[in-house]
Amino acid sequence: MKKYFAEFFGTFWLVFGGCGSAVFAAGVPEIGIGLLGVSLAFGLTVLTMAYAVGHISGGHFNPAVSFGLFASGRFSAKELAPYIISQVVGATAAAGTLYVILNGAGAFSTEGPGAFATNFYELPGYAGRSFSMASAFVAEFVLTAFFLIVILGATDKYANGKFAGVAIGLALTLIHLISIPITNTSVNPARSTSQALFVGGEALSQLWLFWVAPIAGAIVGGLIYKFLLQKSESTSE
Amino acid sequence: MKKYFAEFFGTFWLVFGGCGSAVFAAGVPEIGIGLLGVSLAFGLTVLTMAYAVGHISGGHFNPAVSFGLFASGRFSAKELAPYIISQVVGATAAAGTLYVILNGAGAFSTEGPGAFATNFYELPGYAGRSFSMASAFVAEFVLTAFFLIVILGATDKYANGKFAGVAIGLALTLIHLISIPITNTSVNPARSTSQALFVGGEALSQLWLFWVAPIAGAIVGGLIYKFLLQKSESTSE
Amino acid sequence: MKKYFAEFFGTFWLVFGGCGSAVFAAGVPEIGIGLLGVSLAFGLTVLTMAYAVGHISGGHFNPAVSFGLFASGRFSAKELAPYIISQVVGATAAAGTLYVILNGAGAFSTEGPGAFATNFYELPGYAGRSFSMASAFVAEFVLTAFFLIVILGATDKYANGKFAGVAIGLALTLIHLISIPITNTSVNPARSTSQALFVGGEALSQLWLFWVAPIAGAIVGGLIYKFLLQKSESTSE
Amino acid sequence: MKKYFAEFFGTFWLVFGGCGSAVFAAGVPEIGIGLLGVSLAFGLTVLTMAYAVGHISGGHFNPAVSFGLFASGRFSAKELAPYIISQVVGATAAAGTLYVILNGAGAFSTEGPGAFATNFYELPGYAGRSFSMASAFVAEFVLTAFFLIVILGATDKYANGKFAGVAIGLALTLIHLISIPITNTSVNPARSTSQALFVGGEALSQLWLFWVAPIAGAIVGGLIYKFLLQKSESTSE
Repeated sequence: MKKYFAEFFGTFWLVFGGCGSAVFAAGVPEIGIGLLGVSLAFGLTVLTMAYAVGHISGGHFNPAVSFGLFASGRFSAKELAPYIISQVVGATAAAGTLYVILNGAGAFSTEGPGAFATNFYELPGYAGRSFSMASAFVAEFVLTAFFLIVILGATDKYANGKFAGVAIGLALTLIHLISIPITNTSVNPARSTSQALFVGGEALSQLWLFWVAPIAGAIVGGLIYKFLLQKSESTSE
Repeated sequence: MKKYFAEFFGTFWLVFGGCGSAVFAAGVPEIGIGLLGVSLAFGLTVLTMAYAVGHISGGHFNPAVSFGLFASGRFSAKELAPYIISQVVGATAAAGTLYVILNGAGAFSTEGPGAFATNFYELPGYAGRSFSMASAFVAEFVLTAFFLIVILGATDKYANGKFAGVAIGLALTLIHLISIPITNTSVNPARSTSQALFVGGEALSQLWLFWVAPIAGAIVGGLIYKFLLQKSESTSE
Repeated sequence: MKKYFAEFFGTFWLVFGGCGSAVFAAGVPEIGIGLLGVSLAFGLTVLTMAYAVGHISGGHFNPAVSFGLFASGRFSAKELAPYIISQVVGATAAAGTLYVILNGAGAFSTEGPGAFATNFYELPGYAGRSFSMASAFVAEFVLTAFFLIVILGATDKYANGKFAGVAIGLALTLIHLISIPITNTSVNPARSTSQALFVGGEALSQLWLFWVAPIAGAIVGGLIYKFLLQKSESTSE
Repeated sequence: MKKYFAEFFGTFWLVFGGCGSAVFAAGVPEIGIGLLGVSLAFGLTVLTMAYAVGHISGGHFNPAVSFGLFASGRFSAKELAPYIISQVVGATAAAGTLYVILNGAGAFSTEGPGAFATNFYELPGYAGRSFSMASAFVAEFVLTAFFLIVILGATDKYANGKFAGVAIGLALTLIHLISIPITNTSVNPARSTSQALFVGGEALSQLWLFWVAPIAGAIVGGLIYKFLLQKSESTSE
């Protein structure tokens, strides 16, 4: 059971910290943390929880990561469902807590693309740009594939594995630095689901993309690492 | 005695660096460090002192942390009082030094919510939002609970403990990225007390919340880690 | 072959993350990540890939780095060509992917100095300043020389080598913090080439400098480390 | 000789990166790196060089650090002069290189407080505030004292010493986050001297404070660590 609690609390922290920093602090005039601060916050949720509970559950906090690890042969099929359920429940509990706090300032809103840190495409977002569904899909796919390459590489038995939490957390920061203006950055279906549940409307009708693209990218990333990069067991190249 | 000096200097540094960056550098027009810089500063005070004096005192620098470690069974009851006294005295000495430096530019002020980096609730703060007492309590409670989960997890004997200083320091950065716009972020009663003593008024009358919520959250975080997450001694799960 | 794939994916990530953050996120009004965010992104591409695939290829991701390691005696001449080809192909594939995503918002442009994150000199860039060819050359030369000193020093057998990925990645962040306003920062001919290929015009005609200056600087940095800094094998100083 | 070259190149990098980021990138409108970026740059110069050449010279890059280490008994008196000369020469060479690059855009200026990243007091600086000589002295003294506590603590034989480069580098970032608006932050007489030599005037006449306050603070910090914090050799407390 402890590993499911670890995934619950870890994904709670990812949504509470990442989406929380976005809804409370990103847009404060003049001194707000902006997209850089939100990117840092998402990465630090994973960095901190990787060192806190990584030794308990492996520290996925993300259904796409669980799928990618499965694709590369490092995670068992029968654990997929309980991990993903723990992640989605944790994310939703965090979104509920954010909703309560935000409502205490009368500031919850479902208006406009990206409200309550939801993910989106084909809507005018940052700098008035509207990215097509194809662009959004490519971005989420490529970013999640590379996220898995970093995860699998940094935790490879030949790698300098004690730094994996730093590398993986900061990889998520990097991913957000690139792509918040494209889709508000998902690469994590649990995080997308929790926010969409509270906002409804287009956030829910577009949610499919933020399950399909990250999971497909993660699986491809897992296979790339396994077949093109990973050193073979018995021989040194 | 050395551990009490370590807590004194560590908490001095936390207030001098965290609150100091806020009062000197956050609001400089155009190029100021903003809430992101203040968040980074608070985290770096803990990161730097954790590696500097963590081996002497354990590096609490925060009464809530001492209480949470006690709740989880990793800190003795009889050390609570001397640790907390060292922390509050160190914080107050730092606030006094900030006061002297700020006064040398004629710039000390007690006007408005958050003056001299005080914590507050139910007052119009960042972006004109005013968070209710309940919202402020929930935020401080949840954030301190997770702070303790990170602290206890990252220093667990099964964890990758050499990185604990990085994980714990950056957890404090993350906490500030989320919550400066809610309460100016406490999660640390010593830090709240030192600033309120110099400002008085509502900063003092609201101070109770910044003792009760962080300490209650820390105790709950400590119990969550102990009972839901920590691996049992004698068996591997 | 695996090391060439590692250089391909690593350099893809460097361009996709570094140039991608610049074209998507740097200039969003009010909350954009700015030059600080772009600097962080470039550094994190190297930090994350160093821990992910550094154990496979050494993690160069940059023709100048390969030349500098060769100059210091740590890389073989016969590997230079396949490494550099892998890097340039990876960079170009990343630029193509950025082009596709950006086009999906109708936002690809070749107008003005630094369009699509190209490097440049003698053109009015940031804050209206136009740096001479000599200034641009000196900056790229000095920065790449120091980049190599950090790389060679941090991976020296007498150094604390497990932190090399952190030190080298953050050195690239530092280099960008200094020099984006000078040349848009190259220090990496592969990264300059991929962007210039899509923009053409002056970006192509100025490309020579972003091969010559970084490679010359890298070779000098390699020789400085070897002859002025490196401890001799057989004696302790 | 190699340790003197290490101090030369390390202090060159500190001034080139820290002061360079300030003069080139801090004030670019809208997207400039601001004081947060400059703070990060100063810290990263030390972090990167600590891992690159720390094993050669100990990585001081700062006369105040050399004095503080001497005060605590960890550095020999006869090395003080050659270290400090190497540091000042390295800093001055870096300032000269910055001057050349900046001149290539016609952008070198000696006008106003803080021109060319010089340190100052009693002049209207950031946000129009003018800090008294006493405030400037207290700030530089306290910050350098704590810098030495972090340095001595993080490199203590009982500490988690492999992280010293991270802790010490990020301590310098923290120091800048607090105090750029007070004095433009020195805590390093070599860095102050190199910039003042190129600007002259008040920058030179105020230079004494940026030797006296940091060195006095460093000595006091060294003594605090030695007598109040350091564990005794023969007993465990």
